Amino acid sequence: MSYSPPITEQRFVLDHVVDIADLSKAERFEAATPDMVDAILEGAGALASGEYAPLNRVGDTVGAKWTPDGVTMPDGFKAAYDAFVEGGWSTLAAPAEHGGQGLPFSLATVVMEDLGTANMGFSLVNMLNAGAIEAIVHHGSAEQHAAWLPRLVTGEWTGTMNLTEPQAGSDVGALRTTATPAGDGSWRISGTKIFITYGEHDLADNIVHLVLARTPDAPAGTKGISLFLVPKFRLNDAGEPAERNGVACLSIEHKLGIHASPTCVMGFGEGGECHGWLIGEEGGGMRAMFTMMNHARLNVGLQGVQIAERATQAAVDYARGRVQSARAGKPVAIVEHPDVRRMLIRMKALTQGARALVYYAAGQLDRATLGDAHARARAELLVPLAKAWGTDVGCEVASIGVQVHGGMGFVEETGAAQHYRDARIAPIYEGTNGIQAADLIGRKMSMNGGDVFRRLLDDIRAEGVPELAALSERVDVAARYLTGNEADADDRLAGSYPFLTMLSVLTAGWLMARQGKAVEAAEGDPAFLAMKRVAVRFFLERIVPEAEGLLAAATAGAAGLYAVDAEVLAA
Amino acid sequence: MSYSPPITEQRFVLDHVVDIADLSKAERFEAATPDMVDAILEGAGALASGEYAPLNRVGDTVGAKWTPDGVTMPDGFKAAYDAFVEGGWSTLAAPAEHGGQGLPFSLATVVMEDLGTANMGFSLVNMLNAGAIEAIVHHGSAEQHAAWLPRLVTGEWTGTMNLTEPQAGSDVGALRTTATPAGDGSWRISGTKIFITYGEHDLADNIVHLVLARTPDAPAGTKGISLFLVPKFRLNDAGEPAERNGVACLSIEHKLGIHASPTCVMGFGEGGECHGWLIGEEGGGMRAMFTMMNHARLNVGLQGVQIAERATQAAVDYARGRVQSARAGKPVAIVEHPDVRRMLIRMKALTQGARALVYYAAGQLDRATLGDAHARARAELLVPLAKAWGTDVGCEVASIGVQVHGGMGFVEETGAAQHYRDARIAPIYEGTNGIQAADLIGRKMSMNGGDVFRRLLDDIRAEGVPELAALSERVDVAARYLTGNEADADDRLAGSYPFLTMLSVLTAGWLMARQGKAVEAAEGDPAFLAMKRVAVRFFLERIVPEAEGLLAAATAGAAGLYAVDAEVLAA
Repeated sequence: MSYSPPITEQRFVLDHVVDIADLSKAERFEAATPDMVDAILEGAGALASGEYAPLNRVGDTVGAKWTPDGVTMPDGFKAAYDAFVEGGWSTLAAPAEHGGQGLPFSLATVVMEDLGTANMGFSLVNMLNAGAIEAIVHHGSAEQHAAWLPRLVTGEWTGTMNLTEPQAGSDVGALRTTATPAGDGSWRISGTKIFITYGEHDLADNIVHLVLARTPDAPAGTKGISLFLVPKFRLNDAGEPAERNGVACLSIEHKLGIHASPTCVMGFGEGGECHGWLIGEEGGGMRAMFTMMNHARLNVGLQGVQIAERATQAAVDYARGRVQSARAGKPVAIVEHPDVRRMLIRMKALTQGARALVYYAAGQLDRATLGDAHARARAELLVPLAKAWGTDVGCEVASIGVQVHGGMGFVEETGAAQHYRDARIAPIYEGTNGIQAADLIGRKMSMNGGDVFRRLLDDIRAEGVPELAALSERVDVAARYLTGNEADADDRLAGSYPFLTMLSVLTAGWLMARQGKAVEAAEGDPAFLAMKRVAVRFFLERIVPEAEGLLAAATAGAAGLYAVDAEVLAA
Repeated sequence: MSYSPPITEQRFVLDHVVDIADLSKAERFEAATPDMVDAILEGAGALASGEYAPLNRVGDTVGAKWTPDGVTMPDGFKAAYDAFVEGGWSTLAAPAEHGGQGLPFSLATVVMEDLGTANMGFSLVNMLNAGAIEAIVHHGSAEQHAAWLPRLVTGEWTGTMNLTEPQAGSDVGALRTTATPAGDGSWRISGTKIFITYGEHDLADNIVHLVLARTPDAPAGTKGISLFLVPKFRLNDAGEPAERNGVACLSIEHKLGIHASPTCVMGFGEGGECHGWLIGEEGGGMRAMFTMMNHARLNVGLQGVQIAERATQAAVDYARGRVQSARAGKPVAIVEHPDVRRMLIRMKALTQGARALVYYAAGQLDRATLGDAHARARAELLVPLAKAWGTDVGCEVASIGVQVHGGMGFVEETGAAQHYRDARIAPIYEGTNGIQAADLIGRKMSMNGGDVFRRLLDDIRAEGVPELAALSERVDVAARYLTGNEADADDRLAGSYPFLTMLSVLTAGWLMARQGKAVEAAEGDPAFLAMKRVAVRFFLERIVPEAEGLLAAATAGAAGLYAVDAEVLAA
């Protein structure tokens, strides 16, 4: 159940996929010196393995508990969270003017990976906080910055995002929570939100809810939505948490996994008046959401990497220790059997491929921060891939992890089953993977008249990787169909998911191939380099061809899906 | 959470895939008249939906409980089990001379499907009992038949299979439980078995354990293993359960799913002398196991169909009721969105494909019972496909089912998560899917010098289905590689799993195509026939091409898997 941070791998990907040395040449990221990068990788790994990982199982078995006075976390969580805050880990990527260290997001990604691999449910509190900070940085007033950011950035206070309501899931525009002006610059918030991650807990002195709500006479749909800041405790004149605000956690969900993460039903206007403050402009709620969407979705794609890494470590460990059956006449550990090796190396190759894709996209966002418009566009294109395919990889790898454990994998005490359960949320939240595929086809493929996609495909082809030739050709064919006149809107959506998978595997395959080339010139741990070679070969020779088989589904159109009415699906 | 038996579909597959009318022409199966088949489908569906399905959730949330006096089932299970026994459902496929109804196994398969779809964990007691009956019928003495079979056949007593020990999982030959002759024709059994399904419960008056053990001076490995009958209660002179035998359930596992099924650690020689009686010959234990293996593995493959059917029904129901977002400007249920349709029809197509494969193999076993040697060989070839691919389908479909439910799918109360958890055991037990792939490559492909496989491929090609041409060609290429001189034993095992998937999809695709042809000539419920057409098209046009992408992995060989030593996998 222990966690060993994959520091050599993380550093290799930062060097050869992100090119963090290049990023650190910019003044904005000059703090990211090689020594600093090493120190952060070592320190984050130590925090994650030392403080977060030992709590993973109690997080699952005990989990967050609801009481009328609030949600309590299992023993040990508060101390671990304090270690995170006191170590300054929360401040890495925030801008220096708000108390941050101004380091690249791609480097913060590594820290988030460590925390989530150690304890996925626990790490969600950090992930949500990063999103809230981002929204306030970009849309809050100077006064709001001063009041809220310092302690959100340190992690002394935590942030949440409140979008979903029972009738408004993927369709955010259907939400009904209201905000009414109080006449003093503040608003009164009323409504119920569901699926609010870390909406209530006992880790921090205040919780800052960012809430989407409708103002009076606002237009229907997404245009009528505004963003409000709703603290658990309102601040007194000294800026300290003082009076309890009228917001309460009404219950928490009984979930398949991530039991350490309280998933709250939040009542705004419960237990007194609920005061809120407008962030940005009235009607600008969705725009503020979109600001943080890239980072948030990449962070969820990263959860796929996290659970895949943890499941792989556990499976390799088990397979090396479990002696069963013989090779060449003598008993061996199951790691020596070909089909078990196939499973383990598949786990490693998929995990590394997903990590490369997420880190690469994070690096593109860093370049966007430096003003590179094309990098921003490429990141926008890659975000739905990283989120959807990354989380699909998490589920697949966790499932293989159970299989490697055999009967012991189905017994909860082993831990493999927890990864399988935890992994399953990631394809759902922060925009279901189906929504990601729709975003890819409906918005991202047509950015700059399709040029963003074309340039990615050109870069991949220019790399000259023979194993990618057939898949890139098929991606091209599918893209032409899906963006051409032959396909209508339904045809495009019908093919969107298989196409997303094809393009993800192609892009990850490209990044794996680049690592394969880097290995040949690299020095360092021979075991790591040998394993990287094996993973790259497996990815290119076995995983890439599988994705070729998706062309038919990507281009099959929608007619076959609508040949019967909905009620006939029950026949 | 309700279950609606797919009677029209079951009957259609029995008619057009199994050809049960042809089976019933034989005297052995003459009881299987069309009216009898209809009555059984109706009756089993009613029992399953009326008695078993309502207990599915309490089976999950309360589950089987261990006490020092034995294992207790949740309220309602005993009454439902009594209804099963009293309805005569246990006796369907047992031979008439032992109190059975002598009906085809393929028909009993439908009954087992219904019970398991309604309540997978509960139905395991029936599944294990069928295996124990089969072993005793084929290997027990006339005296043993008379003493044990009548009440096992009715289900008044239940049977178990005891193979696994902590050090002996897939490697059964490593077991250590001992049997020592007592001098009076009986034996004394001593040892510990794990993962014993329904090893202890309060549903029946006696439990008949079939236990693999070593006799004194037996050779090492599988040849030294014998099969023993070990009752919970020994019988008195009147043949009634009387004295408690020295066998006890020491604990039950805390599992990911199928909580209604107690998974027991069994102590033989606990609480007194443990009396056992040899079944068949000394050293014949593995042979007796192999007798029941085909039926047992098909029944586990069928569990994939069960969980897929239940998950699909739940997802269709949810998607028809959940209104979210709009099409053509007005709010619609999510079933109307293209990507949700893709998911739902994929669920239906995979479920139907797996059902066709399992039923077809069951029908081949029925023909084997009638003396058809080729049908027996074909069944032997298909069993690993049905077991492994069928259970993989169960997991995939259950996972899609969670996804269709969105955030609600991750909340346990909805039920989708239970299917996802329950499904995960089936690829593991009764021979892991990796063991199935090894069996396919190592034993089944070479049966009759490869003729059994060739004849299947010829039959598929002779059907003339254009959508199967490319996959059958690739299966052929892979088969030639995997059975040829180019590949060594490791290469074969390295490609075994992808090859199993390719051949499974090809065979299921063939059986789906045959149903597609039958639909054109069939009369009946137009909604059912329309849905069948849609599922057949989806399978042939979208699922079959995916399997084409597995050729590279099937023929990639083992060298890439052994390019690093085992310890490097942790790098």
